[in-house]
Amino acid sequence: MEANDKILLAHGSGGKLAHDLITKNFVTALDNEILSRMDDAAVFEAKGRLAFTTDSYVVNPIFFPGGDIGRLAVCGTVNDLSTSGAKALYLSLAFIIEEGFAVKDLQKIVASIKATATEAGVKIITGDTKVVNRGGADKIFINTAGLGAIADGVEISGINAKPGDKVIITGTIGDHGIAVLSQREGLGFETKLKSDVAPLGNMVAEMLKVSGKIHVLRDPTRGGLASTLNEIAKQAQVSIRLDESKIPIREEVNGACEMLGLDPLYVANEGKMIVIVSPEDADKVLKAIQKNVYGKNAAVIGDVASDHAGRVSLKTALGSSRIVDMLVGEPLPRIC
Amino acid sequence: MEANDKILLAHGSGGKLAHDLITKNFVTALDNEILSRMDDAAVFEAKGRLAFTTDSYVVNPIFFPGGDIGRLAVCGTVNDLSTSGAKALYLSLAFIIEEGFAVKDLQKIVASIKATATEAGVKIITGDTKVVNRGGADKIFINTAGLGAIADGVEISGINAKPGDKVIITGTIGDHGIAVLSQREGLGFETKLKSDVAPLGNMVAEMLKVSGKIHVLRDPTRGGLASTLNEIAKQAQVSIRLDESKIPIREEVNGACEMLGLDPLYVANEGKMIVIVSPEDADKVLKAIQKNVYGKNAAVIGDVASDHAGRVSLKTALGSSRIVDMLVGEPLPRIC
Repeated sequence: MEANDKILLAHGSGGKLAHDLITKNFVTALDNEILSRMDDAAVFEAKGRLAFTTDSYVVNPIFFPGGDIGRLAVCGTVNDLSTSGAKALYLSLAFIIEEGFAVKDLQKIVASIKATATEAGVKIITGDTKVVNRGGADKIFINTAGLGAIADGVEISGINAKPGDKVIITGTIGDHGIAVLSQREGLGFETKLKSDVAPLGNMVAEMLKVSGKIHVLRDPTRGGLASTLNEIAKQAQVSIRLDESKIPIREEVNGACEMLGLDPLYVANEGKMIVIVSPEDADKVLKAIQKNVYGKNAAVIGDVASDHAGRVSLKTALGSSRIVDMLVGEPLPRIC
Repeated sequence: MEANDKILLAHGSGGKLAHDLITKNFVTALDNEILSRMDDAAVFEAKGRLAFTTDSYVVNPIFFPGGDIGRLAVCGTVNDLSTSGAKALYLSLAFIIEEGFAVKDLQKIVASIKATATEAGVKIITGDTKVVNRGGADKIFINTAGLGAIADGVEISGINAKPGDKVIITGTIGDHGIAVLSQREGLGFETKLKSDVAPLGNMVAEMLKVSGKIHVLRDPTRGGLASTLNEIAKQAQVSIRLDESKIPIREEVNGACEMLGLDPLYVANEGKMIVIVSPEDADKVLKAIQKNVYGKNAAVIGDVASDHAGRVSLKTALGSSRIVDMLVGEPLPRIC
């Protein structure tokens, strides 16, 4: 198949063109011994606790500053595995492609998936390709499901946040959402901002090495920091108190949010983790994060309390306090 | 949320409406102790060999005689696990929904998923919901990934077909494809035919109980019996010889195929399995299949030979022989 070819309905047929697309473009590019057996199910050995997660990616545009839908599809699922403290091992990869999609764009996406999977230390061991008629889908959607292994003694869940715990964010907020929005037709604005999309498995492994008292890990993607903290507060039946002046945020993100009428607390991140940890370990966990390439701007941004279960509040830079609710409405469709 | 409501972009936002949709419609309906923790990754204990597979479902229309996209999304993935001899354990469930989709249709689909998962004995333990703008996707797409456990001693793969083996099909071919096509605008024709969509895990377990010499299992979905057998012939470097007079096929399917200019050998099935087994066990495996509710019309339809590696041939009802290639082109887009 030539790079200037287009994807045809027949590429999703289960017939000859589908077979050729899969063997020549996917299996060769993503080569590993499980995938190359070409059975309908991949087989591997497992022992102990496994984490399992799935996400579909419908981001628009599919190429954006700092990343693309392929890197996003690997990082999003790897990071969801990391939220359970798991080391990501295997991914599935399923494409839904619109008829007429450029093969060279598909090849770019597969190359990005390969590079990101290598960085994250995961193997893609099973997959699927569907092609829908023109207008039946917008360019390309990707689903990845992931499997990871959880070490003995690691017990991380949104239900484990405890009063007194410290809340850490591993870097600046809102970078992904604003970088994607900057590319939207009609919203185009000048910025050098890049998406933060990154796999955080190594960072999480480094945290777990220095502390056995990490209670919650959660990546604040859709809905942003505010919605994710609300979910945790409801799960654990605690309150979370943020200090606005401590939340790391880039000037460009603040500026774009003002222009667009957005609150950066609700803007998606794709390379950040919320870490809730016992207060006595907060400092060493923070230091471990800051040593990681993706954690230089990490900061303690608040703590967990027992009053007002389910509530997230923010002490503003001016010293007043306000309640920070879940996102209501949808200012940012197809951000991931 | 009321049944006459529509899905909004905000239902995919990660915010309040998304949280409500997921807790009230998905977690409650699909209730199990892992899913209801509401973490980003589901955690379970595993030991031994696991099978892992994924498929996206883009069938059009989403409700068709004998099934719907929800039943299809469970059966397709459960059956792919069965092709490795695995007992299906867990599924992930990811929706991509078009803005404006009727909530009552989503509820019908979730109820169908629940009923089919119960029938198949699998739990849905993790999920995702994305909503795209009107026109960004056609109604609803579903991805399921699945995990299953493979018992010790079970070694089933497309590479294991051996000269002398018998080829069994577990029932009539083409029912799913023709049932879906009968509902297409412009193609509408009168038929009482229903899709065969069904979970085949129990049938496979019953086969494995009576024989340790099952070499290959494969469900002939997209591309039909012919394309799937071609894949196996290429994987195992053998030839497969079919006897046309033995292939079970309904009158309605034959009639519709004649009218539409289709060859039933290339029409999709969603409740059938190809079984390749040592000749000495073929009879007892066939009997075990025929006892299953989904296997009454099972038949031995051919055998495996060593000449012409990679070739599938058919002895026609008239006694001549012809080569049966992989599907070329795509007569049936969005059949699954």
